[in-house]
Amino acid sequence: MNRHNFEIIESHFSFGGTLQFLRFNSKTLGVKTNFGLYLPPQAQDGHKVPVIYALAGLTSNYENFLVKANALRFAAKWGIALVAPDTSPRDTNIKEENESSDLGTGAGFYLDATAEPWAHHYKMASFVGHELPKILEENFPLDPALCGIMGHSMGGMGALGFALRQPEKWKSVSAFAPICLPSRTEWGQKVTAAYFGGNKQEWQHYDPCLLLKAGHSHPCKILVDQGLNDEFLTILQPEALEETARQVNQPLTLRRHQNYDHSYWFVQSFIEEHIAHHASILTAL
Amino acid sequence: MNRHNFEIIESHFSFGGTLQFLRFNSKTLGVKTNFGLYLPPQAQDGHKVPVIYALAGLTSNYENFLVKANALRFAAKWGIALVAPDTSPRDTNIKEENESSDLGTGAGFYLDATAEPWAHHYKMASFVGHELPKILEENFPLDPALCGIMGHSMGGMGALGFALRQPEKWKSVSAFAPICLPSRTEWGQKVTAAYFGGNKQEWQHYDPCLLLKAGHSHPCKILVDQGLNDEFLTILQPEALEETARQVNQPLTLRRHQNYDHSYWFVQSFIEEHIAHHASILTAL
Repeated sequence: MNRHNFEIIESHFSFGGTLQFLRFNSKTLGVKTNFGLYLPPQAQDGHKVPVIYALAGLTSNYENFLVKANALRFAAKWGIALVAPDTSPRDTNIKEENESSDLGTGAGFYLDATAEPWAHHYKMASFVGHELPKILEENFPLDPALCGIMGHSMGGMGALGFALRQPEKWKSVSAFAPICLPSRTEWGQKVTAAYFGGNKQEWQHYDPCLLLKAGHSHPCKILVDQGLNDEFLTILQPEALEETARQVNQPLTLRRHQNYDHSYWFVQSFIEEHIAHHASILTAL
Repeated sequence: MNRHNFEIIESHFSFGGTLQFLRFNSKTLGVKTNFGLYLPPQAQDGHKVPVIYALAGLTSNYENFLVKANALRFAAKWGIALVAPDTSPRDTNIKEENESSDLGTGAGFYLDATAEPWAHHYKMASFVGHELPKILEENFPLDPALCGIMGHSMGGMGALGFALRQPEKWKSVSAFAPICLPSRTEWGQKVTAAYFGGNKQEWQHYDPCLLLKAGHSHPCKILVDQGLNDEFLTILQPEALEETARQVNQPLTLRRHQNYDHSYWFVQSFIEEHIAHHASILTAL
């Protein structure tokens, strides 16, 4: 694939760099998919820059993080690109695709489904973990050796999962209000029944706590922020992540914040420190 | 009206302060109307703070500025509240209300209509200039003597108009890509025919260039930012504002920016400097 295969949905100059929403035909997903890409001023002459992938939560798409997290200012400051993939394939013609907000469209859970009718398209683990970075690194000035990953809620779960499975690819990781033990949630049960055809074992590849218990780890400290007025707090189970990380000696900073809820009004309040966390690792490599 | 008359649409903690979207019955507009209010940490104990009113552009509502301009970070830093009104009355039952994007809903132009069927509801000049600040100052810790006003596009025109008509109320003013000479645009002709019943003279109360020519002025320097890749550049006519300000000795800083377009990706790139501009005036009073 070359650059001409990207359809430009929108293109804007911002903070001296370029924000684009692009569309291309993903072989992995078997459909066209959209993503957002911010290239900071430091990349405008083709100079390869570090990049942070930002994964959004349930019901979001490729726009939410870039519109609502207020991250461009700090990406521009640090000279880091941002990539925001969609949260699922769309328009796959799977009959159940749009029946609920926590399964199908907007709810890919950043995993590879193993059961039909989902398995043919719902391959977000392979898409975000392999196809998307490969295609972007071939077409844009992104340094393949300097990738970080962050996410919010379902995307926080995704970011932790990718970083623990592929620590050699994702050099830095952080999350806002991640689903820490998804296999034990109602969302997880629904995912198990649909995407995994009832096979709970598949969660060992994606559940951050299960990954840690199975011996996966990340060499750098994981940064997690969690609001204490989060309407999903009991489902997210940050204490499970904290306890598991402690047991396996995974470096983790989990910060709890009074009054903050689950929204991007919370995310934007701490995004500066997340970008700085990634920058401190990526720009030191 | 007291605080209990506000219906809370949303409430979020952000940057140590509180962002609320509220709804109340406006006597001026004759309908219920929504607005956004950000109270910075410095106001949390009831301490009265300065406030900036932010007026959005065509097709926007009370959410766009607060979601997209990335302003809360700097409002919190400077201890300044933000108020984002809607851009028009809504659900007035005027038959033509939703027929186009540049008249009626989302297109109040921050003026008082004089011709029916609009005159009964379309009173955004009186609403933003009088009713809204009065009600907010009675119910929230906002200093009535420390108000600034800013806006984008149609809202930039509105901000300049309010500041020139009521310089004693609006102590500081700035605009992003304002419509500088609206009476001479196609938008303005449509407004004249509908809201003013064909009477062009009404524009003297709202058109920034006409206000300046009629002797209105503002004691503080006006800050305006304009992108040079703005798709509406020829309609916005920043050069008319610059020339008129020069003729009447109105202090104005008009900055032109290569590559930036009309979107909030432009606005957010310079919002820090706009909030600082207002803060430098409001916190010195």
